[in-house]
Formats: sequence, C-alpha cells, structure tokens
Amino acid sequence: MAKLYVVGLGPGDHDDMTVRADRALQSCSCIVGYHVYVDLVKERYPGKKLLTTPMTREADRCRMALELARGGEDVAMVCSGDSGIYGMAALIYELRGEDTQPEIDVIPGLTAACSGAALLGAPLTHDFAVISLSDRLTPWETIEKRLDCAAKADLSVVLYNPASHGRPDHLRRACEVLLRTLPEDRPCGIARSIGREGQSRELLTLGQLRDAEVDMFCTVFIGNAATRFIGDKMVTPRGYRDV
Amino acid sequence: MAKLYVVGLGPGDHDDMTVRADRALQSCSCIVGYHVYVDLVKERYPGKKLLTTPMTREADRCRMALELARGGEDVAMVCSGDSGIYGMAALIYELRGEDTQPEIDVIPGLTAACSGAALLGAPLTHDFAVISLSDRLTPWETIEKRLDCAAKADLSVVLYNPASHGRPDHLRRACEVLLRTLPEDRPCGIARSIGREGQSRELLTLGQLRDAEVDMFCTVFIGNAATRFIGDKMVTPRGYRDV
Repeated sequence: MAKLYVVGLGPGDHDDMTVRADRALQSCSCIVGYHVYVDLVKERYPGKKLLTTPMTREADRCRMALELARGGEDVAMVCSGDSGIYGMAALIYELRGEDTQPEIDVIPGLTAACSGAALLGAPLTHDFAVISLSDRLTPWETIEKRLDCAAKADLSVVLYNPASHGRPDHLRRACEVLLRTLPEDRPCGIARSIGREGQSRELLTLGQLRDAEVDMFCTVFIGNAATRFIGDKMVTPRGYRDV
Repeated sequence: MAKLYVVGLGPGDHDDMTVRADRALQSCSCIVGYHVYVDLVKERYPGKKLLTTPMTREADRCRMALELARGGEDVAMVCSGDSGIYGMAALIYELRGEDTQPEIDVIPGLTAACSGAALLGAPLTHDFAVISLSDRLTPWETIEKRLDCAAKADLSVVLYNPASHGRPDHLRRACEVLLRTLPEDRPCGIARSIGREGQSRELLTLGQLRDAEVDMFCTVFIGNAATRFIGDKMVTPRGYRDV
C-alpha cells in the first residue's frame, strides 16, 4: 500500500535534513508542496513527479497528496522546517479523518527555533515560547495575549512570520507589547534565510528590534532575563551553579 | 585549527540525526558527553577517543571538551535532542568567554517537541511553550508561573523532564496548576523513549495525566483549546478556513 510522508525539510540546506527525511525523498515517486520548498529539493531527487500549489491553498495541496497516495503513489509532502510546527501534518490528519488509509508517516525536521538559535549562538537553552505573528489564521488579540504572557513568565520567545507584505508593522506592535514588561536593553537576535542563499544574523536590543527591518524569511529571538551577548553570540545560560 | 562541534543527536535513532551531525561525528577525533549519549553513537563511529562524565558534571564536561579542542583534537560534544535547547551549547560559549578559540560549531538536532509530536500525531502545529519540570536549576515557583501563563494564553505546552527519582510528583503538581485554567478533558499525550528501545505513546486527558506514571525518558504534550483526537492521533488544527 502506498504511503504519504509528511517531511520536514529543516531550514533549507540538505545538510540540515535528517537521514530519515532524505530516505523518504529518495524512495517516493511524487513530491508535493509549496513551490518554494519543492524548488529546494527537486534537483537532488530527480525523476519524481512534482506537484505544487500556491501558498494559500494548503487544503487543496493536502487533498492532492492524499489522493495521489490513495492512487498508489508514494508521496512526500514537503514542509519547510518541521512538518508539525506550522507545517502540514495536522491538516493531513484532519483531511484523512477517521480513515486509516493512506498510511501517514510524519517525519520531523529542524524547526527555525533550533536552526536559527544555532546561527545566533545559544539563545534558548531553557524554557521558551514559539509564537507566530501571522494573523491570517489567528486573531491579533490572541497573539498579543500570548506575547504578554510569555514576557510576564520570563520565557524566551521565538517569533515566526514576523512580517509579510500585508503586515509590515507586526514586529513593531509585538515589541511594544513585550516592552510593557521587558527592558529596552533585553538581548535579541534575528536569523535570516537560515541555511539558504543570503543567510545572515543580527544581534540587537529589544528597543532596536522595534525598528528593525524583517521579512518573511526572518526568525526573531527575544532573550529571557539571563540572556546576554558573549562576543558575537547571543547566549542564555542554563544556570549551572558550578560555572 | 581544531574545532569543537556541539552536536544535537536528536531523539536517539541514527535516522533522526541530520546529515551535518553525522558528518561531524565521522570527522571528529574525540567524542565527549554524558555516558548515555556517548553509548548511543559509539558503535557507529568507531576509532574515536571517548570521554564521559556523570550527569551533574556538565561544566567539567564542557571544560574537558574545550581543553581537548585547544590541544588540537576535533571534538564532538554530543547532546540528546537539540544542542541548544536544554543542551550544552550555552555552557560551552560561557566557558569560552570572550576568547575566539577554539572555534565552536553548534549543530542543531531534533528536539523532543518535534520528534515526540510526530510520534503522537500533530499536537503542536501552532504557538506553543516548552517548559522543563526540573527544579534542579529553576525555582519551582518560576515553573508554576510559566505553566499558569501558558495555560492562560492558550499555548500548547510541551513538558520536558516531567519526573525523575528525586521528584516523582512534579507532573501531578504541574497538572494541578494547568487545571486551574484548563478543562479536565483537554487532550494530552505522552511520548516515551522516542527513537529508542521501548518507544511508546499514550493519549489521555489532562485529568488522567495528573495521575499518569512518567519518568525522565518521557515528553508530555498538553493541547490547546482546538486540540482533539482523530483516530489514534493527537491533532491541533492549524485553522485553515477552507477545510
């Protein structure tokens, strides 16, 4: 029976894929995904059927993948980062419903909280929250509430989707919420295009972050009360007492 | 000049390591780590010097790794899961301080929030918090505050270190904090020994979780208001409006 793999590609570079994800892409007959992600892998895995849909047609993309697997294709549905975190795994399960076919294999991948952190140093280390600033599927009031709670609980925060064409000021508004609780000099970092052409990194304070330019390829890190810059790294100590 | 790799191994199975982590372990001359993690990799990478320290001697372990790299060894310091999240990357940077040598390369790995989620279905999908229940380095009051804030903000929650020999009742106490805000029937899941011998999974409600038996090899997932069970999977819908 054919299988539907929901594959987290990690940030973009093949080196950041897992062995399991690489094997699924080798073994499948068909790769389905948003065209940017299919473009990341199509040269390394030649001879596959490639099917893409535009960014906002996620449900169509998932229905297509399920239909292909029901028809006998081994399908790899590719997701950027992890397949579960802001990825397609949940939607695939929802659309399959109580049916047990096709078989689904969710293959996790490096999410930007991990890959972006490594680029900046070690900004997480301890408890943290991951919050998307996209209000396409979440009311902005909910996002604000989550930011406010995370700041009050001294959680480090990782912001996904800090901006897009339709919402250029979301990062500024998010920083204003955080600054109700956190100081202007709280260490922060921006990881850009992790593992892809144009990769870069920036260390700055929360006050500076409010006015920073970001796009949809950025992941933003806000430290907790212990976070500091050591050399050119953003580091949150774990708190080992014998250091 | 020798290099110090801080390598996230992922949950345990070689298939869940990244290509980059595999390459670092192949190229290094020396593997340093907590003995359980060194045991996970030593057979696949023969001919390396192996150095281990007990669990609570993290700073000693990091000093040893830095010293070896300064002495010319290419060192892979291995961490379970990600190298940054509850891993050794921050401590390595702290102990190196403002020095720029030895060169440090933090190689991220799959953290249990990603690998455990894939085992259970797709329980995260959207915004979430990662909170450790270990009070070895964090006051319990801080942990309670974080749990309370996460529940109030409708964040899914991933609990690391839900129990150990010295603190068997931490999960019960954490559930009691969450139940101040969340309902008894909130869907939850436990991922055990992910990617290792004895891997298992369990779906249950938050009320049941309060009395569940867990150990240090468990990762616990608490859903948000939208999370539900679909067949034998724990799924948090992303909220695509056209489903």
